[in-house]
Amino acid sequence: MASESGKLWGGRFVGAVDPIMEKFNASIAYDQHLWEVDVQGSKAYSRGLEKAGLLTKAEMDQILQGLDKVAEEWAQGTFKLNPNDEDIHTANERRLKELIGETAGKLHTGRSRNDQVVTDLRLWMRRNCSTLSALLWELIRTMVDRAEAEWDVLFPGYTHLQRAQPIRWSHWILSHAVALTRDSERLLEVQKRINVLPLGSGAIAGNPLGVDRELLRAELNFGSITLNSMDATSERDFVAEFLFWASLCMTHLSRMAEDLILYGTKEFNFVQLSDAYSTGSSLMPQKKNPDSLELIRSKAGRVFGRCAGVLMTLKGLPSTYNKDLQEDKEAVFEVSDTMSAVLQVATGVISTLQIHRENMAQALSPDMLATDLAYYLVRKGMPFRQAHEASGKAVFMAETKGVALNQLSLQELQTISPLFSGDVSHVWDYGHSVEQYTALGGTARSSVDWQIGQVRALLRAQQA
Amino acid sequence: MASESGKLWGGRFVGAVDPIMEKFNASIAYDQHLWEVDVQGSKAYSRGLEKAGLLTKAEMDQILQGLDKVAEEWAQGTFKLNPNDEDIHTANERRLKELIGETAGKLHTGRSRNDQVVTDLRLWMRRNCSTLSALLWELIRTMVDRAEAEWDVLFPGYTHLQRAQPIRWSHWILSHAVALTRDSERLLEVQKRINVLPLGSGAIAGNPLGVDRELLRAELNFGSITLNSMDATSERDFVAEFLFWASLCMTHLSRMAEDLILYGTKEFNFVQLSDAYSTGSSLMPQKKNPDSLELIRSKAGRVFGRCAGVLMTLKGLPSTYNKDLQEDKEAVFEVSDTMSAVLQVATGVISTLQIHRENMAQALSPDMLATDLAYYLVRKGMPFRQAHEASGKAVFMAETKGVALNQLSLQELQTISPLFSGDVSHVWDYGHSVEQYTALGGTARSSVDWQIGQVRALLRAQQA
Amino acid sequence: MASESGKLWGGRFVGAVDPIMEKFNASIAYDQHLWEVDVQGSKAYSRGLEKAGLLTKAEMDQILQGLDKVAEEWAQGTFKLNPNDEDIHTANERRLKELIGETAGKLHTGRSRNDQVVTDLRLWMRRNCSTLSALLWELIRTMVDRAEAEWDVLFPGYTHLQRAQPIRWSHWILSHAVALTRDSERLLEVQKRINVLPLGSGAIAGNPLGVDRELLRAELNFGSITLNSMDATSERDFVAEFLFWASLCMTHLSRMAEDLILYGTKEFNFVQLSDAYSTGSSLMPQKKNPDSLELIRSKAGRVFGRCAGVLMTLKGLPSTYNKDLQEDKEAVFEVSDTMSAVLQVATGVISTLQIHRENMAQALSPDMLATDLAYYLVRKGMPFRQAHEASGKAVFMAETKGVALNQLSLQELQTISPLFSGDVSHVWDYGHSVEQYTALGGTARSSVDWQIGQVRALLRAQQA
Amino acid sequence: MASESGKLWGGRFVGAVDPIMEKFNASIAYDQHLWEVDVQGSKAYSRGLEKAGLLTKAEMDQILQGLDKVAEEWAQGTFKLNPNDEDIHTANERRLKELIGETAGKLHTGRSRNDQVVTDLRLWMRRNCSTLSALLWELIRTMVDRAEAEWDVLFPGYTHLQRAQPIRWSHWILSHAVALTRDSERLLEVQKRINVLPLGSGAIAGNPLGVDRELLRAELNFGSITLNSMDATSERDFVAEFLFWASLCMTHLSRMAEDLILYGTKEFNFVQLSDAYSTGSSLMPQKKNPDSLELIRSKAGRVFGRCAGVLMTLKGLPSTYNKDLQEDKEAVFEVSDTMSAVLQVATGVISTLQIHRENMAQALSPDMLATDLAYYLVRKGMPFRQAHEASGKAVFMAETKGVALNQLSLQELQTISPLFSGDVSHVWDYGHSVEQYTALGGTARSSVDWQIGQVRALLRAQQA
Repeated sequence: MASESGKLWGGRFVGAVDPIMEKFNASIAYDQHLWEVDVQGSKAYSRGLEKAGLLTKAEMDQILQGLDKVAEEWAQGTFKLNPNDEDIHTANERRLKELIGETAGKLHTGRSRNDQVVTDLRLWMRRNCSTLSALLWELIRTMVDRAEAEWDVLFPGYTHLQRAQPIRWSHWILSHAVALTRDSERLLEVQKRINVLPLGSGAIAGNPLGVDRELLRAELNFGSITLNSMDATSERDFVAEFLFWASLCMTHLSRMAEDLILYGTKEFNFVQLSDAYSTGSSLMPQKKNPDSLELIRSKAGRVFGRCAGVLMTLKGLPSTYNKDLQEDKEAVFEVSDTMSAVLQVATGVISTLQIHRENMAQALSPDMLATDLAYYLVRKGMPFRQAHEASGKAVFMAETKGVALNQLSLQELQTISPLFSGDVSHVWDYGHSVEQYTALGGTARSSVDWQIGQVRALLRAQQA
Repeated sequence: MASESGKLWGGRFVGAVDPIMEKFNASIAYDQHLWEVDVQGSKAYSRGLEKAGLLTKAEMDQILQGLDKVAEEWAQGTFKLNPNDEDIHTANERRLKELIGETAGKLHTGRSRNDQVVTDLRLWMRRNCSTLSALLWELIRTMVDRAEAEWDVLFPGYTHLQRAQPIRWSHWILSHAVALTRDSERLLEVQKRINVLPLGSGAIAGNPLGVDRELLRAELNFGSITLNSMDATSERDFVAEFLFWASLCMTHLSRMAEDLILYGTKEFNFVQLSDAYSTGSSLMPQKKNPDSLELIRSKAGRVFGRCAGVLMTLKGLPSTYNKDLQEDKEAVFEVSDTMSAVLQVATGVISTLQIHRENMAQALSPDMLATDLAYYLVRKGMPFRQAHEASGKAVFMAETKGVALNQLSLQELQTISPLFSGDVSHVWDYGHSVEQYTALGGTARSSVDWQIGQVRALLRAQQA
Repeated sequence: MASESGKLWGGRFVGAVDPIMEKFNASIAYDQHLWEVDVQGSKAYSRGLEKAGLLTKAEMDQILQGLDKVAEEWAQGTFKLNPNDEDIHTANERRLKELIGETAGKLHTGRSRNDQVVTDLRLWMRRNCSTLSALLWELIRTMVDRAEAEWDVLFPGYTHLQRAQPIRWSHWILSHAVALTRDSERLLEVQKRINVLPLGSGAIAGNPLGVDRELLRAELNFGSITLNSMDATSERDFVAEFLFWASLCMTHLSRMAEDLILYGTKEFNFVQLSDAYSTGSSLMPQKKNPDSLELIRSKAGRVFGRCAGVLMTLKGLPSTYNKDLQEDKEAVFEVSDTMSAVLQVATGVISTLQIHRENMAQALSPDMLATDLAYYLVRKGMPFRQAHEASGKAVFMAETKGVALNQLSLQELQTISPLFSGDVSHVWDYGHSVEQYTALGGTARSSVDWQIGQVRALLRAQQA
Repeated sequence: MASESGKLWGGRFVGAVDPIMEKFNASIAYDQHLWEVDVQGSKAYSRGLEKAGLLTKAEMDQILQGLDKVAEEWAQGTFKLNPNDEDIHTANERRLKELIGETAGKLHTGRSRNDQVVTDLRLWMRRNCSTLSALLWELIRTMVDRAEAEWDVLFPGYTHLQRAQPIRWSHWILSHAVALTRDSERLLEVQKRINVLPLGSGAIAGNPLGVDRELLRAELNFGSITLNSMDATSERDFVAEFLFWASLCMTHLSRMAEDLILYGTKEFNFVQLSDAYSTGSSLMPQKKNPDSLELIRSKAGRVFGRCAGVLMTLKGLPSTYNKDLQEDKEAVFEVSDTMSAVLQVATGVISTLQIHRENMAQALSPDMLATDLAYYLVRKGMPFRQAHEASGKAVFMAETKGVALNQLSLQELQTISPLFSGDVSHVWDYGHSVEQYTALGGTARSSVDWQIGQVRALLRAQQA
């Protein structure tokens, strides 16, 4: 008899239970992560019950002390799980009853696991997102510091992985840092939607016993309360949003990792990973592999997979709580762990990366100034389309002759356009080239400095 | 010779072109959606060039008038595409040149298709998101109006698709409306990030010709400008965010559709779709199928598929512009069209749906008051866990005897607990039951009214 | 110094290691699942080395005995992991060296972890897929047995969740069983592609020491050997295929679960889950929830998420081994565990499910015979389109009059078509209706029997 | 009145229709792709009806001729769609009726759009998959031909994008060709499951009029018939499988594209794309971008997105036909078109690609022979782990001294191990290095030739 085994739903069930089903159904293996917030939520709820007259002050104190004891056991690793503890809520209440007796049976009055679990999860994610937010800021700060320090390093900017135009190395760093500031902004928005209290929604219809949800909100320091009990117990928008936030952030980091993996090849040879973030080969003694970056890149798939999985689970689900929603927690825990590791490893990689300035400089080639050559003609009055075509002809001429673009003589250039004159030689200076890009967002030093200022201001504003 | 065919990149290419590759590469088949915003962006850019001294006032006027003519041709359906028009940018500039001559060649000065296309797309999405936002509000408003009008209808609330507790029909409507208000809130956030100007970022390094991006921003009425030219031309966060916004919104609508499909079965028989949103069977004359709702449910998959596709395309992509990014537009266009249709059809469904009040009422059964029976005992001082078990025993007793829960005699109930007395009969009133749930978010009338007020206030605030 | 810590790549690395990176990089936490197949692969490889003259017979025997000892420690739970054991390969070889000394250092000759890990994974999956295959067969067999036993039960067939035509309950069971036979067929195909030996591919270029891969294949009982060493060490098709196999199978089971959840509602009330596969509510004493089925339905999302994640990880990955591929194993292990539980729980659900024959019978209604009414007219010579319209008019007439379709008098029917005569009364027999559907695949008893025979024959053929 | 508009479901519906719903519901915009197979299916079905005595020979001939006329109109582009033609089935039957009168109304006897549409789609996909199969074989053949011709070209093999070991260029080509042979094998399996006839399944219960499904199968040249009518009309495994097949194939091509994009950078400079498969920049005259390869890489996301979308749509769908299934066709059509273009463009790229043999040769460096150096010691009797460490020390020594690995003197090497002697100089020959890898699947010429033979044999076997 199930009732004999002390299950929460008490006296009704008859018949045996399939052990595989028991295990399939149980969430305790992973939702024990929630032990602390479960206790926190229950403490607030017992205060709500006391205020509503459903607990005496003495009963409340007994429960509060019992819950503190439960928490202490978890914290010290002495909490013992029972085979019948199918989830953390059951486990904690079972233990509470062992500790304080029948009064424990009053704690769940008017509450359902439906509103309890989602309160717990929001509490857990609220704390965790703060941690992730700090780790993200630390990464951005590291990148901005580095960008500020190495503003004078030039190297090729690529589009389509083809050399495009000379840019500052800092400009490249900032391009990734700026992307991460959007992740930081988005995380704040997700946190806002996590920080809404569902407790007091019961199983579906709400709470009928006069529990003051505003008091519960204040106790648990939530920003607001959920509006509708049916929605509150079954919506997992905040989970899906968090998983998508992580997916998009990982997409950014996967692109940065890809760049650094390329820049670290023998062929590019612009950067070298610290040994701390590389590993070797079990077969090839000369190998030093960028495992850290490859793992970061790969996790974009894993994290997105969790997002996809949860959305598919939610698709077409009937209203209110269905057991399908139990899928939410493992996804959140795994993705949180992954993000934490990825952000710290990325920070370590960026802060210890060596750059090879000379290789960067040597990779700049005159053909990357073909656009500047066109601008030269534009400044002499030629419409851009003609200038672009003229510069293209110069590139073709140089290729045909087998010389670098800046090796074409003035006479040769003048066969393409009479607007070329001696001052064309100024075009072939990479430092001069980058300093043209003074429009906000460009690669000139002034703009790089502006970017650094903007990102620092954003971080300050978000932390406030 | 490619140069003879007038391609944008002018004088360099040699060699023939594979017609399948030409088609594979061309985006004009779908990016012509952007004709209007492409002209709009070019007009602003020509003003920027004039301010920077790269166009005379007369040249600018010539370009502006030419662009207006181009737009007029599109609007009137007289614009003729050339086989060499690979994208909308090429097409419009080619036509401009035909209309005004060589001055047209000055328009693209300092601009790249990399910053042009993303400016166009942001302009298009900005407008489109406003439309979607209005459609979403219209749906929410329809739902709230209906919830307000039908506050007195009770029916079973389900969890796990099993009858749980009596609730108000309005409470069910609001549970879905409240979910949609989060979509509305999220869309505003996405719109904020769409509304950032990338123009003036060039291909990668920025703009070297003194174009004032702040002026461009003001001309095009953007909220701010992008911070880094490399990021600006290659980030598609706003696309991914929009697609995810749509995916999550569709998940909500898929759940509402699922509910209504169930409620419209012969077995539930709570609602009846208007004929306008049903279709028949080519084989079975008696059938009336909820095709509108099934299509809404199905589109959750389609829309999410686009989100998944774009994220996978972005994963591990090297920095800056790569042609891979061309995948963004079809996804945006298709999802925008889908959302527009879905939101309007959903509004039509909700506004024309008939409800069967009597069936709803008859579906309420005494066992759904078992929780209330437990609360009865709680109010008499029994700890909830014992009350829950006692109520469970009553349910079991009624089942065993083959009677309804409210048919158990007082004597029978007292065998379970001596706390039962004559006033237990008040438990069996559904109207009384729902009115207990007065905590905010519950199904009592006061709380339903509060919810309506909250949602209306949100809509007003968001529209402001 | 890394070399001091005994890492595989020996003498080269300098510099400290970030502990978060260490953990991020290590796979031992999950790849220890592979202990047995890792030993199995190493034993075969040492035989290959002996045959190639790289080990003496005595050395081989020493290694084989050492590996058996390693396996024994794992089997008995006495194997102790070191902090430096980053993966199962390192751990086992480290232990081997402790047990037998320097000879252990000969085991990895010409082998790389790149070909080793994928050999291990294939061995593991080969065994696991056999188990899953047997579980799937068990489920199908249970369904077919049940279909055979309950051939005489009729109930409504639904399309669009609207009552469509009377069908046999067995026909419904078989519709899901038949879908699962395709999963079974596909799994055999995946198993065929798993069963290919990569060992002897080295890190990338192959094996240079004369190891006979055909001998390795025979030792490990693989069906064939991989064709290209670069592909062999980095392709994960068999992983992606397995994950997709599981996703599609779960999609089938999610649809069956959805049906049963609906059929188990109070409103349909066709089936009742065994208590062993239901759970109760912590709040509502009367609830009995189909958690088993909801979990099955939800796992479709989780499993697909893993498939999506791995595919995204693979997208755009450079050739050959990259650390990104480390993502494969956790996905495989998790999905294997999920499938194993799901298949067993589904078998338990089906074998213990009660059906309510009377409710099923009572749910049949005359309007479900409207198609048969049209066929009646067709048999009298009326073109189907007209017959369909005539039957539709009869449905409309009955609805308007508020009577059941079979309550229309012959006179009333004759106002629709003069072809109606007294024998129309035969139409209103559900048993007669289903027996019309004698074409193969239909719901007549003969066809149901044929289906049962076909599925049984398939199972026999696949097991052969 | 819907009945006045001649909709298929005839006389029942009352009430107006929402034009947005009409458009939302209609599939004719895309399912007109099926015109030819729809006619083909209807012709076979009319033969089945004649055999079953439901059509006279004269009626059948009339229908067959009418259908031929319908097909002719489609083929000649003269078929005119009506506003009420919601799908291709309705359109063709409506037109047939216009052409031959009331007899057309007999065609749909016992058939439903549920079995009709899935028959059409299978016919369409069967043909289309044959085309894709041929395109895939053409690509593989091109690759194998190239591998055979350029067997003598050596270049660096990379793992983790770090130079690993010298390999043959042909070995690289074959690594991708071999992956594609698995796609080819899988496509055959998908084709087998597409090639199953559902016609004769009706809407759900089967066919009640004695239509011989075996005759239909033979008429339409299907390999077998579906087993269960409920499953037949609602399973879309073959669609999901096709989309996954395409996703995995695209994953392979995305990896090949990634390699070639890298090899085509200025930094690697191993290959040069033909101009036919490159495009230029609208801003930078010197740019030549690998757009073809980037588009191939990007399409992996798009195609997978469709697969994800369809699976999500299928998840949790109730049994049998639901309108949700209408999502299948656009996914199939779009993915088919994409695959066709991708395979042809990939073939064009491979067949016109230039390789830079000298750059490839120069990229080989002595440190890539470190593994061979270890093997040298292994052959002298040193256990591999010691040899690996010794070789690692040599690499470290060379790096420290700033010389190439092969510049270390014999004396220097002997400080690491006394086993080094004069014959170590043979190690430094790249041609000698690759020829060591004679185990099947390795990079030695004999193995490359074996691979070519194996792939050619596979192609022949699959085509048979």
